[in-house]
Amino acid sequence: MQVAVLGCGVVGRGTVDLLTENAAWIAARAGEAVTVKYILERRELPDCPYADKIVRDFDVIVSDPEVGMVIEAMGGSHPAYEFSLRALEAGKHVVTSNKEVVANFGTALLEAAEKNGVQYLFEASVGGGIPVLHSLAEDLSGNVIDSIAGILNGTTNFILTEMFTKGKSFADALADAQARGYAEANPAADVEGLDACRKIAILTAVATGVLVPTEAIHTEGITAIRAEDVRAAESVHCAIKLLGRMVRTERGETFLMVAPFFVPRTSPLYTVSDVFNGVLVHGNFVDDVLFFGRGAGAAPTASAMVGDVMHVASGGAPVHRPWKRADAGAVTDFAHFACRRYVALEGVEQGAAAVIFGAVEPLAVEDGIAFLTDEISESEFFDKLARITAAGGKLLSHIRVL
Amino acid sequence: MQVAVLGCGVVGRGTVDLLTENAAWIAARAGEAVTVKYILERRELPDCPYADKIVRDFDVIVSDPEVGMVIEAMGGSHPAYEFSLRALEAGKHVVTSNKEVVANFGTALLEAAEKNGVQYLFEASVGGGIPVLHSLAEDLSGNVIDSIAGILNGTTNFILTEMFTKGKSFADALADAQARGYAEANPAADVEGLDACRKIAILTAVATGVLVPTEAIHTEGITAIRAEDVRAAESVHCAIKLLGRMVRTERGETFLMVAPFFVPRTSPLYTVSDVFNGVLVHGNFVDDVLFFGRGAGAAPTASAMVGDVMHVASGGAPVHRPWKRADAGAVTDFAHFACRRYVALEGVEQGAAAVIFGAVEPLAVEDGIAFLTDEISESEFFDKLARITAAGGKLLSHIRVL
Repeated sequence: MQVAVLGCGVVGRGTVDLLTENAAWIAARAGEAVTVKYILERRELPDCPYADKIVRDFDVIVSDPEVGMVIEAMGGSHPAYEFSLRALEAGKHVVTSNKEVVANFGTALLEAAEKNGVQYLFEASVGGGIPVLHSLAEDLSGNVIDSIAGILNGTTNFILTEMFTKGKSFADALADAQARGYAEANPAADVEGLDACRKIAILTAVATGVLVPTEAIHTEGITAIRAEDVRAAESVHCAIKLLGRMVRTERGETFLMVAPFFVPRTSPLYTVSDVFNGVLVHGNFVDDVLFFGRGAGAAPTASAMVGDVMHVASGGAPVHRPWKRADAGAVTDFAHFACRRYVALEGVEQGAAAVIFGAVEPLAVEDGIAFLTDEISESEFFDKLARITAAGGKLLSHIRVL
Repeated sequence: MQVAVLGCGVVGRGTVDLLTENAAWIAARAGEAVTVKYILERRELPDCPYADKIVRDFDVIVSDPEVGMVIEAMGGSHPAYEFSLRALEAGKHVVTSNKEVVANFGTALLEAAEKNGVQYLFEASVGGGIPVLHSLAEDLSGNVIDSIAGILNGTTNFILTEMFTKGKSFADALADAQARGYAEANPAADVEGLDACRKIAILTAVATGVLVPTEAIHTEGITAIRAEDVRAAESVHCAIKLLGRMVRTERGETFLMVAPFFVPRTSPLYTVSDVFNGVLVHGNFVDDVLFFGRGAGAAPTASAMVGDVMHVASGGAPVHRPWKRADAGAVTDFAHFACRRYVALEGVEQGAAAVIFGAVEPLAVEDGIAFLTDEISESEFFDKLARITAAGGKLLSHIRVL
């Protein structure tokens, strides 16, 4: 099979490297050779060993009947979406790592794939090299999935691990992540949770068949987490992790969120540290399954891209059926989401706070007071908080407990 | 699609339960209903809610053209192998959890499946509900897999966890496992490593395409592990785990083994405790990936069985190509396997041992002496041990280090 790779950045280059380096192995496993015919790239790359494959015009690729598959590694929504759609409409399979396109346009692209008898595959868009999407779509598909909790962003997990193990502030840990190349100069998409939000939207769509728009997902980042909060978490044997979560309750509610959580030492997610990702899935028969590995980087992402290529090359049936767009009731109002909560306050006594918050577990902190509440909903929490602020108290921190 | 289930024991019953309880969900996901037409069972099961489906004659199943798939949950080699072969030859897909049959007869059964245009699937035979085989066969298949290390047997992991967390002896921990129903009255297949041996043979066959006979795999159990060894491991931040391992070295050697190992706290396998299983796979692009979950039990095993059923029902291509039988050079002589080693001796001084074993890291133990060696091969180790015993020393324990 001949393929074209769109983009020769970190991921595109890594995918071509994998297809080249493991070519004999791949041909033997897939039953046929997988050859890169074109690489679409605007930049001049004089030192690139694949310079002879580079083209600048997508029309060359989409109009070439020898190209059976397009591997999209451009990033960003446009023109990645338009090129993907055109490739599918031209009867070419599309494999991508582009979570922005999958989260925003996955429904349309899966429809186009089905209509044209080809596949749209995106294992690399979530969890880098970790094969969680294919497992959810197929191996675990006999289960009703009632919970997904994922550490889905390596940059924020590195920052939180530095804060936990070295006592750093958020600002210092971010600067360190930037110095190591783990965080971009503009880290907003990572530290404000948007990247994890796209990924939990995709995971949920694969598990349930319904794609929820990212705007409908309650999303918080980690920028407000204080070194004091990390120490307080540690005092109750928890680490703070940024989680993407899907929760279906027994009452039929479905909650989607991205937020930092206190993760107890007994959870398999507790030890997922540094730049690693981990996705904990709970199904009604399989119970807990954890997938763990490198969530980013050229080689792991290329591994997932090529896994999708192998699926197509070996004649595999469509992994994903077209998703439904979420209707108004697909996600329950986040105000009803109930959990235990870590609360840090100043300007109020522990006794006064206990009157308002009921039975609480006090934590020893240097400034102000802090405690864990019983399970209360978002709206209950903010009602109680309003009484605290009315009495002159001030919220320092509020982090949910897994 | 109509299916027949062979055996109504724990796994067979669990699989029928899943297909029944999640029937609407499964029909929606697979695009067609999956209905159990027959259950093959010799025993009288008057209280079984599926009594109307029970038949006693396999011929009824194999000769019924409405049965498109056979789910084998009998256990043991015979007649499970013969029934599986006859079903495949009759053009029926076969799904199984039977690791004994897969490890012993997988090559012949995959050939029969290919010849008859159907599939032989066995996700449930390794790691219970954990989807590691399908991931290895497809998602990670662009990688050359150079290492697999798996905690593949829940019974022994429970025993080792009890020894680690509660300081129990092997005998006490085994008795406790038996009392809880985790270990059978005759626990030999578990505690002597045979169960894990079958599973590493299957994992390796899926990753490499070559099935190595279990007799060619170096297999040790955990019966000789002493409470002192567990404490010594803990003193160097290790836990003792029974691992199935496949290792391909840069020199082109391939080693297969089942043995207890010192697993350092930095390994993702360290926290895989109690009855849980974990499989750590290393590929040349994806780096480390860990799969973690329940390795046994009715519901998780049923989840994996039904995942395979869904693969077939949704028109999936064959997951596994026929395996090659291992030739003489497929596995390197275990005498050449090199690693660090924990050694406990009596009747010899630490100084004398150091002369023979070279630079070693001494460990504090109550009786005799103990130390960690540098990386040495099996043959080197036994040569040195012969010199120790010639000098009146005696081996108390020898455990490899991961």
